[in-house]
Amino acid sequence: MKSFRDPVHNLIAFTAADGLLVDLINSREVQRLRRIRQLGLSNIAYPGAEHSRFVHSLGVAHLVRRFLDAPTRDYFDAPGANVRDFRHLAMAAGLLHDLGHGPFSHALEAITGVRHEEFTTALIRSPQTEVHQILEARESGLAHRVAQVVERRFEPSRAVVKLLSSQLDMDRTDYLLRDAMMTGAGYGSFDVEWMLHVLRIGEADGDLEVGLDLDRGMSIAEDYIMSRYYMYLHVYFHRTTRAAEMLVEKVLERAREIKAELPGFTALNRLLRGDLRLREDALADYLDLDDSVLWTALHFWSRERDPVLRDLAGRLLHRRVFSGIDVADDAEARAVQERMAERARAEGLPDRYYVILDEAKSSAYTDSYLSGGEKRTPSEKIFLFDRRGAATELSELSFIVQAVRDKHMRARRILCPGEWLDG
Amino acid sequence: MKSFRDPVHNLIAFTAADGLLVDLINSREVQRLRRIRQLGLSNIAYPGAEHSRFVHSLGVAHLVRRFLDAPTRDYFDAPGANVRDFRHLAMAAGLLHDLGHGPFSHALEAITGVRHEEFTTALIRSPQTEVHQILEARESGLAHRVAQVVERRFEPSRAVVKLLSSQLDMDRTDYLLRDAMMTGAGYGSFDVEWMLHVLRIGEADGDLEVGLDLDRGMSIAEDYIMSRYYMYLHVYFHRTTRAAEMLVEKVLERAREIKAELPGFTALNRLLRGDLRLREDALADYLDLDDSVLWTALHFWSRERDPVLRDLAGRLLHRRVFSGIDVADDAEARAVQERMAERARAEGLPDRYYVILDEAKSSAYTDSYLSGGEKRTPSEKIFLFDRRGAATELSELSFIVQAVRDKHMRARRILCPGEWLDG
Amino acid sequence: MKSFRDPVHNLIAFTAADGLLVDLINSREVQRLRRIRQLGLSNIAYPGAEHSRFVHSLGVAHLVRRFLDAPTRDYFDAPGANVRDFRHLAMAAGLLHDLGHGPFSHALEAITGVRHEEFTTALIRSPQTEVHQILEARESGLAHRVAQVVERRFEPSRAVVKLLSSQLDMDRTDYLLRDAMMTGAGYGSFDVEWMLHVLRIGEADGDLEVGLDLDRGMSIAEDYIMSRYYMYLHVYFHRTTRAAEMLVEKVLERAREIKAELPGFTALNRLLRGDLRLREDALADYLDLDDSVLWTALHFWSRERDPVLRDLAGRLLHRRVFSGIDVADDAEARAVQERMAERARAEGLPDRYYVILDEAKSSAYTDSYLSGGEKRTPSEKIFLFDRRGAATELSELSFIVQAVRDKHMRARRILCPGEWLDG
Amino acid sequence: MKSFRDPVHNLIAFTAADGLLVDLINSREVQRLRRIRQLGLSNIAYPGAEHSRFVHSLGVAHLVRRFLDAPTRDYFDAPGANVRDFRHLAMAAGLLHDLGHGPFSHALEAITGVRHEEFTTALIRSPQTEVHQILEARESGLAHRVAQVVERRFEPSRAVVKLLSSQLDMDRTDYLLRDAMMTGAGYGSFDVEWMLHVLRIGEADGDLEVGLDLDRGMSIAEDYIMSRYYMYLHVYFHRTTRAAEMLVEKVLERAREIKAELPGFTALNRLLRGDLRLREDALADYLDLDDSVLWTALHFWSRERDPVLRDLAGRLLHRRVFSGIDVADDAEARAVQERMAERARAEGLPDRYYVILDEAKSSAYTDSYLSGGEKRTPSEKIFLFDRRGAATELSELSFIVQAVRDKHMRARRILCPGEWLDG
Repeated sequence: MKSFRDPVHNLIAFTAADGLLVDLINSREVQRLRRIRQLGLSNIAYPGAEHSRFVHSLGVAHLVRRFLDAPTRDYFDAPGANVRDFRHLAMAAGLLHDLGHGPFSHALEAITGVRHEEFTTALIRSPQTEVHQILEARESGLAHRVAQVVERRFEPSRAVVKLLSSQLDMDRTDYLLRDAMMTGAGYGSFDVEWMLHVLRIGEADGDLEVGLDLDRGMSIAEDYIMSRYYMYLHVYFHRTTRAAEMLVEKVLERAREIKAELPGFTALNRLLRGDLRLREDALADYLDLDDSVLWTALHFWSRERDPVLRDLAGRLLHRRVFSGIDVADDAEARAVQERMAERARAEGLPDRYYVILDEAKSSAYTDSYLSGGEKRTPSEKIFLFDRRGAATELSELSFIVQAVRDKHMRARRILCPGEWLDG
Repeated sequence: MKSFRDPVHNLIAFTAADGLLVDLINSREVQRLRRIRQLGLSNIAYPGAEHSRFVHSLGVAHLVRRFLDAPTRDYFDAPGANVRDFRHLAMAAGLLHDLGHGPFSHALEAITGVRHEEFTTALIRSPQTEVHQILEARESGLAHRVAQVVERRFEPSRAVVKLLSSQLDMDRTDYLLRDAMMTGAGYGSFDVEWMLHVLRIGEADGDLEVGLDLDRGMSIAEDYIMSRYYMYLHVYFHRTTRAAEMLVEKVLERAREIKAELPGFTALNRLLRGDLRLREDALADYLDLDDSVLWTALHFWSRERDPVLRDLAGRLLHRRVFSGIDVADDAEARAVQERMAERARAEGLPDRYYVILDEAKSSAYTDSYLSGGEKRTPSEKIFLFDRRGAATELSELSFIVQAVRDKHMRARRILCPGEWLDG
Repeated sequence: MKSFRDPVHNLIAFTAADGLLVDLINSREVQRLRRIRQLGLSNIAYPGAEHSRFVHSLGVAHLVRRFLDAPTRDYFDAPGANVRDFRHLAMAAGLLHDLGHGPFSHALEAITGVRHEEFTTALIRSPQTEVHQILEARESGLAHRVAQVVERRFEPSRAVVKLLSSQLDMDRTDYLLRDAMMTGAGYGSFDVEWMLHVLRIGEADGDLEVGLDLDRGMSIAEDYIMSRYYMYLHVYFHRTTRAAEMLVEKVLERAREIKAELPGFTALNRLLRGDLRLREDALADYLDLDDSVLWTALHFWSRERDPVLRDLAGRLLHRRVFSGIDVADDAEARAVQERMAERARAEGLPDRYYVILDEAKSSAYTDSYLSGGEKRTPSEKIFLFDRRGAATELSELSFIVQAVRDKHMRARRILCPGEWLDG
Repeated sequence: MKSFRDPVHNLIAFTAADGLLVDLINSREVQRLRRIRQLGLSNIAYPGAEHSRFVHSLGVAHLVRRFLDAPTRDYFDAPGANVRDFRHLAMAAGLLHDLGHGPFSHALEAITGVRHEEFTTALIRSPQTEVHQILEARESGLAHRVAQVVERRFEPSRAVVKLLSSQLDMDRTDYLLRDAMMTGAGYGSFDVEWMLHVLRIGEADGDLEVGLDLDRGMSIAEDYIMSRYYMYLHVYFHRTTRAAEMLVEKVLERAREIKAELPGFTALNRLLRGDLRLREDALADYLDLDDSVLWTALHFWSRERDPVLRDLAGRLLHRRVFSGIDVADDAEARAVQERMAERARAEGLPDRYYVILDEAKSSAYTDSYLSGGEKRTPSEKIFLFDRRGAATELSELSFIVQAVRDKHMRARRILCPGEWLDG
């Protein structure tokens, strides 16, 4: 029995029967997630939001366990919903789904051209990693199967796939609750006890889906969608956070441009040289990247000779990120951008680093922010199942979800140094 | 009006009238506290405990404001309790009281020989710092007065001093609540609303004290003392956390011994050379130290040639800290220590790094853990005031507090690599 | 200083300066509210929902005090928002706004033809009552002014009127929070701290209104509207609760029909005779009615000779209320009603007591449930105020509120004994 | 699946496998508990404390279910701990353990001379009751076995007995949590999740006991004992509540003395005649007694001719209970009592009704308040079990529990009309 105290779930416990989980938690690769913040730079706007990807990963494994152990599993699920036959697989996949995250994920993905999910599965499949060795020691081929679950293409149990990647999956459930609590942003919470009580595995469009009980699940579904909507609006899309994220991109871009390599920072230097790719020989270096390495690099760059790199890095360190000017359309964007570019040139500053177009677009319903703008797929639907198992899609029943579905969050701003806006 | 969302206090807001606070919050030195964890290495045992000293400092300033604005201030305080005449001073001191903390404070204090409180007041008094400049711009001499409050020797208002350093001060109030919530350790919370409602400023032993209403405050006083007791027992004295803290000390000791300086790490290198002292010329470097710099150094040292430094640093990174063997008395301590030292020698390892005596001693009542073993002083008493202002010391009235007062927490262990204990 | 502990607000405290409130709380008429449940028969569906109108009234007075004492009052309100000049009046009106409620209010209003608000103002104005005497002892004419606030027509401060009767008033704020907590229905709560932080008094359509800050208040406004929507859907319109409410009406109707007066139950007997009207001579009797008198009458009637009264009263006592058959339209309603009426006749039972059409209609936005179907008036709008005080109506900005506004909750059912539905 | 929302446990759900529970919940006798407040007259001091014995009984059954279903059951319990073999019995006993409570239990027990536990088992055993019929329909002899559990003498499973009556039983666990939440008295709560996690069934003194894990359970045990201590101090022994309880006794005493029977109040009149005994023919009448009947009688008596009964009943209705004068010892008690008795005589009032000695004595550790002063028995101990199952008694290990154990709460007061104290 291994137990953790947790501000969100209070108690996270794994019994001896779930010993595989305990071994995986103790692996280097999972321990590394302690050094990567779940919300990247959001603590700049919400000073409580310092929680790590490690504690989120524990939370996901815990919710998978609760789902599997719920008494409702015995009563309401569709005949083929064999989730309990894949207990270890489902819990391991829950724990490991974010393994490949690096620090400041979006900036990093932009510079490497590799999505963190690809690193996740590469790490699980690589014989070098402790997680791989632990999984294979348990059962030959298990590492591959876990990777398939993460890739959403594990055919023996579609329900396990959906439990970890669908609208109502345990990943989103944990991060919404956790991010809402840690930011202190009141709106984001929802009643997870009731949600777990009314989750059902049913069949829809010829596939198994994690959905909700038709009679009791509609309000919680709406509440969940609304929570997500508010978290996007107030947290994930927060203007100061986005300004910081774009500044990180610019810092890395400049460092690459002027080849600002730092002695000893092997992984980071490979990153700047474009050599930190999805290859077996790069994985060990990739694992060395974490928030502290990046922040230390910012310290160092804030003392660089290059005035641009020095200034941009210092702004991040001391929380003097760019301010934004909201613009209504492309024409206004161009006009403001041009005006600010002139100002940059007048100050002798390169406008590509000092005048930035921030164009955030998303929908809280289809979740393209996290899934990289992929088109809405069947798994982006939320199904409600009646007693006989017949499925209806939520947005057909709920006028609130209809309203949210059709609402696209969109921010368009020109970012530049705040001191330019007062003059 | 500047407002922050916070998991502990929900909403922390400062109005235009408290604009000084907002300016101080935006200073470099306060922003730096974002990069230092309040609980150092406790996240190794409590994975949720990642909160920063920055958010704690906001919380203290917020509690000071709530104390000053409580309607009870108008009714029950002793005549000389002029706290409201020192509003800006009290709030600024609340915000700045931890300014001098470095990463892994105890290990750092051990190696520099300088207590973090001394850095705090040096930073407030130094004309180099933004906080100094902001305070002085507001009112000449204010920086010095804030530093005096932190040093507990501001004579014009003893009550302000006590509000920030006494048994019931706003510093402890915030950190107990915050650490309890973030660790998820259930026992540590108490009813802060009721506490703020029954706090009184009274006179005892010829000095002003922040105490409690005699008729309504005894149970909350007991509950608060018990919360502190449990937080020491389960969090601050957690064996894994202590093992990690001692490992940090050993890493720094080894790095100093073998002169393992790292290119670019100016502040850290000065630290290892014994040159990071309490001098005006060292302050800027001191401010460069934060958790990320230390963790990055651990990364680098985990790839060092020296096998001892490499091994110890790697243990911290991958959470393979030493295990402890509880010993009953000095004789057993010596015996176990000798046995393990032999084992170390057999493995070719220097026993001063691999066999460590961990002797933690404290009392949750007199709080010597945080105050460095200072003798109990009048300010370590908790007073209860009756309607006419007469004071009684809590431990005279409360059998529970008597019991806790006489209880000394004591842990005595020999720490060594866990793999030695199974053979 | 008088303080109460409260599950919703934790601590409700009134200082000596608010001594009028303390006197009013101790009056007979306010104490009587202890014996009337806030949610009438909702405990039949939500067994935790036993809270009284007394504790709700305390909560409203407390929220009024918090609103008046908020630091935001000094900064953002419109010039004429003189709420602080009417502190006693506003708090007293908050405490007394529900004074005229009787047990099972809706059934009682149906039988007396008098709305509880009319009893409220009659009691405040009647020289017989302690509340009247306390108000007048404080300040001549105060009772009348409090009654005017309750009637929404106190002209010297429109803002005080709105603080107690408008979309965002302190009455709804307390009952939503309280009912949500006590029922345990997760959806109904919202972040009251943030709401109090962003409430503003502004001017719109030539009248003062309690609205919200445009920049920060939109999400809390939506969240509040959604909370209300869910509370209607799941609590106030709960089918079992409604079935119980309709059964109470039928019991009283039958008792009146067969003149089932009970010895000693003076007030109830006047009620059955149609003699409990809004007249000075009836007020003392009206005050004798409370939940316990009605429940005791149900006990007695459950042993009556008349089989209909005996059966209906016993059903309420032992929680065997009628079941409902949902019907889609008038035609189906008539068909089902006719079929069940035949069944009733076959059993020798009068169908007017055993076959009931339940037609609930409401909108969570315009709140006609509580205000008795009155037309939407300006005060049913929610305004958002920008920095210069310009007002915009919420439903113009919020697509969620638009969706809720146009959604009418409607239930149409035929209620009859559950045992008829299985055969 | 039958589910209830609950403010304490959020969701209480019983699956089809626990259908017996659902049937019992729907019985008349269990439904009657809705009309009896858990805390009798405590709402006079804590206006939120209106919760019923029904919702508490649901909570106990729910905690029994959680205990039985905890994964820890599979790992740590002593070999003979066959609680899972008695699932229905244990849950039914949890639900029914308070079935015999009447309104204002202590006053009622004083007047009838019958303890509520005796009514509980009589009702379970009586063939008249629905609960009896439901239990026997399930399994012949089950009613008798449930009654034996309530009587603490069911030999086939001592562990089931302890689960419902011992220091750490599910009854106390629910009522402490619920009373703490509903009163809003901050101190009374404790971490029930952790407690359920570390509960163990072990063997001690030759009997099975529900105790705690030695390594992880000590702080929760202390916290639980402290919570109970505070609840006694602040809630169960609250001076206003006790004054109200004693007033009820005096009202019933006076009503009996002057034979103030009320038409139609069959059960109450039998009670006053001393004819409501523990006999089969009295059970139906006993079941008619509930809070509303008593409060209605108070209404009626407040209009009686007898000035003593009229005055005392009116004082309860309008919350004008007697005030207390604390006395230090017997001598002072006698002196004050005599002085007040003279005052009573001067007013022409019988001093036996107007001058009352309130002598409350208890210990939060041995719980004699609830168990009627019975001597401390083995089941009043709390055991901690180590990994091999060896038991140690908590008070041997915990200095805090030692302190609380030796502390006897004692209040000695003379109660009389408050208006006598100011003159």
